[in-house]
Amino acid sequence: MKKVVIIGGGAAGPKTAAKLSRLDKNIEIELYTQENMVSYSACGLPFYIEGLITDINNLIIRTPEEFQKQGVKIFLNSKCTKINPQEKNVEILNLQTNEKKLVSYDNLVIATGARPFIPPIANIGLNNIFSLKTLNDGIKIRDKMRKSKNALIIGGGNISIELLWAFTKNDIKTQVIERSTHMLNMLDDEMGELVEHYILGNFGNIIKIHTNQEASEFIGDNNNNVIACKLNNGDVIETDFVIIASGIVPNSEIFKEAGGILSIRDTIKVDTYMQTNLKDIYACGDVVANYNIVSHKPAWIPLASTANKEGRIVALNINGMKEAFHGVLSSVVTKFHNLTIASCGLSERDAKQNGFTPISAMVTKKDKAGYMPDAQEITLKLVADYYSQKILGAQAIGPGDVHKRMGTVVACIMSDFKVDDLLNLDLPYAPPYSPTIDPLLTVAQIIGQKIFNLNK
Amino acid sequence: MKKVVIIGGGAAGPKTAAKLSRLDKNIEIELYTQENMVSYSACGLPFYIEGLITDINNLIIRTPEEFQKQGVKIFLNSKCTKINPQEKNVEILNLQTNEKKLVSYDNLVIATGARPFIPPIANIGLNNIFSLKTLNDGIKIRDKMRKSKNALIIGGGNISIELLWAFTKNDIKTQVIERSTHMLNMLDDEMGELVEHYILGNFGNIIKIHTNQEASEFIGDNNNNVIACKLNNGDVIETDFVIIASGIVPNSEIFKEAGGILSIRDTIKVDTYMQTNLKDIYACGDVVANYNIVSHKPAWIPLASTANKEGRIVALNINGMKEAFHGVLSSVVTKFHNLTIASCGLSERDAKQNGFTPISAMVTKKDKAGYMPDAQEITLKLVADYYSQKILGAQAIGPGDVHKRMGTVVACIMSDFKVDDLLNLDLPYAPPYSPTIDPLLTVAQIIGQKIFNLNK
Repeated sequence: MKKVVIIGGGAAGPKTAAKLSRLDKNIEIELYTQENMVSYSACGLPFYIEGLITDINNLIIRTPEEFQKQGVKIFLNSKCTKINPQEKNVEILNLQTNEKKLVSYDNLVIATGARPFIPPIANIGLNNIFSLKTLNDGIKIRDKMRKSKNALIIGGGNISIELLWAFTKNDIKTQVIERSTHMLNMLDDEMGELVEHYILGNFGNIIKIHTNQEASEFIGDNNNNVIACKLNNGDVIETDFVIIASGIVPNSEIFKEAGGILSIRDTIKVDTYMQTNLKDIYACGDVVANYNIVSHKPAWIPLASTANKEGRIVALNINGMKEAFHGVLSSVVTKFHNLTIASCGLSERDAKQNGFTPISAMVTKKDKAGYMPDAQEITLKLVADYYSQKILGAQAIGPGDVHKRMGTVVACIMSDFKVDDLLNLDLPYAPPYSPTIDPLLTVAQIIGQKIFNLNK
Repeated sequence: MKKVVIIGGGAAGPKTAAKLSRLDKNIEIELYTQENMVSYSACGLPFYIEGLITDINNLIIRTPEEFQKQGVKIFLNSKCTKINPQEKNVEILNLQTNEKKLVSYDNLVIATGARPFIPPIANIGLNNIFSLKTLNDGIKIRDKMRKSKNALIIGGGNISIELLWAFTKNDIKTQVIERSTHMLNMLDDEMGELVEHYILGNFGNIIKIHTNQEASEFIGDNNNNVIACKLNNGDVIETDFVIIASGIVPNSEIFKEAGGILSIRDTIKVDTYMQTNLKDIYACGDVVANYNIVSHKPAWIPLASTANKEGRIVALNINGMKEAFHGVLSSVVTKFHNLTIASCGLSERDAKQNGFTPISAMVTKKDKAGYMPDAQEITLKLVADYYSQKILGAQAIGPGDVHKRMGTVVACIMSDFKVDDLLNLDLPYAPPYSPTIDPLLTVAQIIGQKIFNLNK
């Protein structure tokens, strides 16, 4: 009987296990995770902290017992410490008993994910300095938040935005320290500024964003509890607790030590079939490098949606079906209060850096027929290449339905749409759903006109 | 100075006028309409009747005065009675003075739209039998509804669905007479049945739907007010007023009389540049035939969104820019209470009729991560061709975000996506916006599996 060993219990590993167990009842599947839980939605944690989700168990997708019923053996608190590709086995450390054992495999799937990046800030080991990755992290942060008045978030990415809202909704005075000129660096400057303008315009009384700043040192009290953070510019920010959200690093060390080839930012390099350079070893999820469909370059866009796609592909390939994964568009969406912020493809800045000649346009328009009482604004920026006229990327923010347009643009970019093709999009129209001319078509018209004028 | 005469004041005519006036300040533009208002959103009328929109003037997009400022002359109550293509002029009847005049043109744009089809039911001339097309129709229906207890709708299309909700919300007991097996015949049977199941399950106390029935005769009182309707099966339905929503017919008669060539269902035949067979005469909007991109056949899908696209194309072509309109996907969306109903491309039934070998799948899934408190269900049906594996169409209903998925599918169909391409769609994911695996990807996976199994 063929035996497949999966390392990692986040999104990709469990997806591989579940799919594989459905495809072939005669495969022996074992999944090892160093955590005490498997298959949960880490993306839901900010909404648990916010209070929108009251029972953290709702974030569990499949329990170990459910996996057992499907014929998948789950080993919790079991850390893979070494891969022996010649011997085709892995070394597993039981974190509860401290015992080690060797587990043999016919196919190995590395889905070890990523961990929070811990920046070199002095005294980062003080109490009440958290990062958010596991269910336990979520519980600890929520408990501490409910006893606190002030919070500090180091870093200005998607998770920061969602936690910023979670804290704001709970009346916590929150400050953010961001190294670059604005939060959410996947956005072009003017879009990032609009986001900050919205946040501060509506909640400036309890939110402060320090851009172009870095934290240099945490200050603690006699009990080693953090009480303040010192910035590079000398400013000192008092706080009851700290969130470190300065990015993540892939858990690729054991793979590298076994002779595995890495890609961008130490992620695991895989081919389109999710195979690594090591025989019979696949990798998927947050630990692997992605291929960016627009830039044609490796990228690292770790997301649960991609992890699920990749886990499925790995299962199909182990089952002999030769299925390829074509890559990603860097599609991202996040939420602050009623504001949706989304992007896909290349920003104008990234487009330039990748050798394109971007032409862009931006519109602010109602998301429904203007006379509908619940119509809301969205601001949409579209980026196209002047020479090929292909759509390269889009960014959108607003209280209106941003995500809808983004899904459409994603399909357009993945099919090499030109600006003119977008103008012909027969989007279903009725007043509760869009204006007669959708904002997406309006912004494409403006780009078309700009290109036309340049060619005159 | 070049003179462009536009006949019709709905969506396409005013769009042509507005776009043309921006493109070229040196064109003389005259627009004639038989109505007493120009450029309004007829699609908004059901929401006015419902009471969601309180001021009917909100439905007016551009007033005649605003057009005048843009250099477009608007002539209200002015009906075009004859086209003389040899002399390059049109005969205009002033409906207020009953005077006729000849108006010459360099380019003529026929945007005469469509009118309600009046079925051959006896006594259809009785009072309180309405159809919905103009602002005045909307006002009359709203006024009558507010004084009524019972309503009867003849026909089960999109407008019927929206009016059915408008009346239901206003506590009017409403009955619908539908000739075929279910309302909304753009849907396949099982989807149409789901819609009726939802409507009757939630509002069966005040709504009754008579399928496979036709009205044969209206019955009036001594004041010629309708009081009942007799069906083919002999049943008599009492009512305070009646809506005739049995489809529409194109206002193409004057064009035909001038030697114009018609297409499907008496719509005007145009080429991809919206040119008719008559020299220097364009046509656009509800009066023209569309080209269905999937079936490669003429279709008639009169919608304001398409009218706007076509109006723009006509303006660009009159301005010498040679812009093509590629056709439509029959994209439709409508709303009943909190239920969205949408379709695009070919239904499974239409796919068979058009010579495809459709493979379909249907899923019911949450529209957001299942643990989000506001997650709602959608039921999505996808149709693909077995041999080419191309996506042919989609239908979706539900209280969840149906329209979002439809926009994405539209882009996929218009770019000749195969089922496998859909599986790779990098839709932006976060728990408030979609499950990690979007319903669209789930339903595509099922079709992929079906095709795979058939090929084994």
